[in-house]
Amino acid sequence: MSGDPENSEHPEPPERAATTVRADEFLAGLRDWLAIPSIGVDPAHHGDVARSAAWLAEALRADGWPDVRVWDEGPAQPAVYAHWPSADPDAPVVLVYGHHDVQPVDPVERWTRPPFAPTLVGEELFGRGASDDKGQVAMHLLGVRAHLAATGRTTPAVTLKLFVEGEEEGGSPHIARTLADHGADLDCDLVVFTDTPLYSREAPTVCTGQRGVYGAEVVLTGGVTDVHSGRAGGSIPNPATALARLVAALHDEDGRVQLPGFYDHVVLPTDVERADYASLPFDEEVWLTNSGRARGLSGETGWSTLERVWVRPTAEVNGLVAGYTGPGLKTVVPADARVKLSFRLVPGQRPEHVAEALRGFVDAHTPEGLRAEIVSRGDGVPPYAVDVAHPAVGAVRDALEGALGKPVRFSRTGGSGPAAVLHETLGVPVVYFGVALPDDNIHAPDERVVVPLLLSGAEALAVLWRTLPGRLAGGEPPA
Amino acid sequence: MSGDPENSEHPEPPERAATTVRADEFLAGLRDWLAIPSIGVDPAHHGDVARSAAWLAEALRADGWPDVRVWDEGPAQPAVYAHWPSADPDAPVVLVYGHHDVQPVDPVERWTRPPFAPTLVGEELFGRGASDDKGQVAMHLLGVRAHLAATGRTTPAVTLKLFVEGEEEGGSPHIARTLADHGADLDCDLVVFTDTPLYSREAPTVCTGQRGVYGAEVVLTGGVTDVHSGRAGGSIPNPATALARLVAALHDEDGRVQLPGFYDHVVLPTDVERADYASLPFDEEVWLTNSGRARGLSGETGWSTLERVWVRPTAEVNGLVAGYTGPGLKTVVPADARVKLSFRLVPGQRPEHVAEALRGFVDAHTPEGLRAEIVSRGDGVPPYAVDVAHPAVGAVRDALEGALGKPVRFSRTGGSGPAAVLHETLGVPVVYFGVALPDDNIHAPDERVVVPLLLSGAEALAVLWRTLPGRLAGGEPPA
Repeated sequence: MSGDPENSEHPEPPERAATTVRADEFLAGLRDWLAIPSIGVDPAHHGDVARSAAWLAEALRADGWPDVRVWDEGPAQPAVYAHWPSADPDAPVVLVYGHHDVQPVDPVERWTRPPFAPTLVGEELFGRGASDDKGQVAMHLLGVRAHLAATGRTTPAVTLKLFVEGEEEGGSPHIARTLADHGADLDCDLVVFTDTPLYSREAPTVCTGQRGVYGAEVVLTGGVTDVHSGRAGGSIPNPATALARLVAALHDEDGRVQLPGFYDHVVLPTDVERADYASLPFDEEVWLTNSGRARGLSGETGWSTLERVWVRPTAEVNGLVAGYTGPGLKTVVPADARVKLSFRLVPGQRPEHVAEALRGFVDAHTPEGLRAEIVSRGDGVPPYAVDVAHPAVGAVRDALEGALGKPVRFSRTGGSGPAAVLHETLGVPVVYFGVALPDDNIHAPDERVVVPLLLSGAEALAVLWRTLPGRLAGGEPPA
Repeated sequence: MSGDPENSEHPEPPERAATTVRADEFLAGLRDWLAIPSIGVDPAHHGDVARSAAWLAEALRADGWPDVRVWDEGPAQPAVYAHWPSADPDAPVVLVYGHHDVQPVDPVERWTRPPFAPTLVGEELFGRGASDDKGQVAMHLLGVRAHLAATGRTTPAVTLKLFVEGEEEGGSPHIARTLADHGADLDCDLVVFTDTPLYSREAPTVCTGQRGVYGAEVVLTGGVTDVHSGRAGGSIPNPATALARLVAALHDEDGRVQLPGFYDHVVLPTDVERADYASLPFDEEVWLTNSGRARGLSGETGWSTLERVWVRPTAEVNGLVAGYTGPGLKTVVPADARVKLSFRLVPGQRPEHVAEALRGFVDAHTPEGLRAEIVSRGDGVPPYAVDVAHPAVGAVRDALEGALGKPVRFSRTGGSGPAAVLHETLGVPVVYFGVALPDDNIHAPDERVVVPLLLSGAEALAVLWRTLPGRLAGGEPPA
């Protein structure tokens, strides 16, 4: 639109040029960072998580952030904290949240490009973490530089704090402790949470909530060793069969989760949000392609696909294993069987309640002769949704509309993150700012990010830091 | 009892001394053989299967067998054939069946002794294959030598043929072809089948039947790649959940298998056999200990444990796997899920009927949006039971009673072997001769064999070859 006299009421914002001029440098830095395999859930990669934190800290210092620290305070994986006070003592204080740990890469044989040798193909940058979440954290660094360059300021118009943790993909198991230990450092008026996608490039959205998650591994144990099924088959309980019956009982025929009380306190989204969801273009083929090339939709009866993923809770099997899984036949009754389960939660649900309900459910579905154990994987992540009428939500939406040149609607995301913990601990609203795409293959082979979206995101952030003080002070958006 | 004048009506048979004198030499040879990891189902060990066959052929030649051949006629793993004609042209022709391939050793970390460095501890020889089946095949070699030495003969009283195959643990997938290709070589009046256990050392038995088995792997596939459960969880079918529901539907609440028609033609054992089963000492604790230290009994309602394992058919999960099974969490919806199933079959059932019923069952339990595939693992093994009134069964029982000094009752075994194929192809009865024990840990870590039982078994075989011609001719057992 820039330079078009018919759009003179929307002149090109100075933040755009300030972003574009730094694009090559931005990309080169991001590629260096993506080459570090910071898989936080894998102890073998904990050294890489530390290297990744050090890389980010150095990049922030090079950008002029006056106060940069690596919080390496085990058992938490290293986090990076940075602080850039505004010269205006009344400026709102904004805490940006992101993470620099990445998902494991298996099945690594399904990647068509190496996960940790970032490759630029056209507009796409491929590599583990390109979208989730290093690319979007790097976008913030660029956004701050563009904000300062575009406004000629030497300090940002808002006091900025950055908190980039190192174990989000493991469910942020120590974030509550970190927030408690660093309350003064992290004190703020607003959290900007960057780890969510747009609905699509064509129909961009601002996220207003994330599902929570509770994950646990259930282990059913019979004997101490696998036993020849000709020897004992038919005379002792088979843990794999019992596990299958337990998993089968998790849902009814309508796809509703059968943990007692699971739906008791679920809060539905507002009518405004549901109307936006219904108005978004939905292409079943694209959805399936982006869902690992699935063959068909399914889910809880009575809800649309977007509602099933954004505002309805679920129970999913993430993995299971028992007995002999190698080549050929081995006719054994397995000694044990294990399933990794995760429950996605929506506002009104709490991980601790689900954990308790699961314990009862497992006890009720463990037959005589087997022992059940639940290996909990942390406390889980509560769900979160922001009030869509909050002025910061409007400021984010307007900044994105300007940078993307398109209307921006409301969406949510079916993924999970520590937004609720940040909200509850810091006592402030959390708004979402993210430009990932649903087909970025996060948590899957061939993760990528669309580079022009990162650049538009940086531009929008630069605008956001300029406009946010007025919006939070009650000002209307510019006409 | 030997030398006791009160037992002069049971003088020590000459076969006992002829066996004992060769015990050390026997053990040394067996240990060499057990050191060869002839895992027939693992292509990485096919060279070892060939080495194992060569070892056996050489041992037979050294013992004086006049005609020894290795049948290495892919795709079948190498088998060993040997022939020692009796000088008596009217002597019955007996084919001894066994196998020299062994089970895989995983979970190898649960072995307390190395599986392929045979270790003698007191009366027990530990090593993969010690009991199943190399130890018992070696027992036959010793038995023939003892028979000749005890009788002063230069050829056995029966014409002996030996057929030791190399892929029994894989379900003998090519045995029908081998039997067809070598019909003249294998022509005989009786098969002596050696791959079964006694009920116990204290209550020895002669086996009269084995269950059959049909094994298959069922694969349910959704998409092409695992997908982030936050991204798509709740909106697409989860193959692991569907697989669990399929497995859960395999049995009803009474433990009865739900494949259509599964029980239609089942033949029950005779009253004589059921009375023997009921009279055998049964110690639940021992049974559980020998069943991988299981925690409790279970199975089809209305049948005893021995009946459940010996004369009732089953469906068992041998292994299953889906999604992420590594350390920590990975919240994915798996692309596929797979289960290895095996069905133990009893007389009246046929593997091909079960295969057909399974196909229908899987189709009926595959939800929309998933694709089902059944990876069949060969044609399966039919069940077999011998007529307990056959004179050869009596001859085996009497020979064992003499060697073991105890009454010998009837039992069966829940395992499977190619007895039915031998019976159907060669058109002759198959009798069982085995001295393994249920607690030999076959198909499990720390497999072992009780050496004195192998020696008593060799003695009984030496007696059997001497007495069998008369028994088959209609003679009564000696008073």
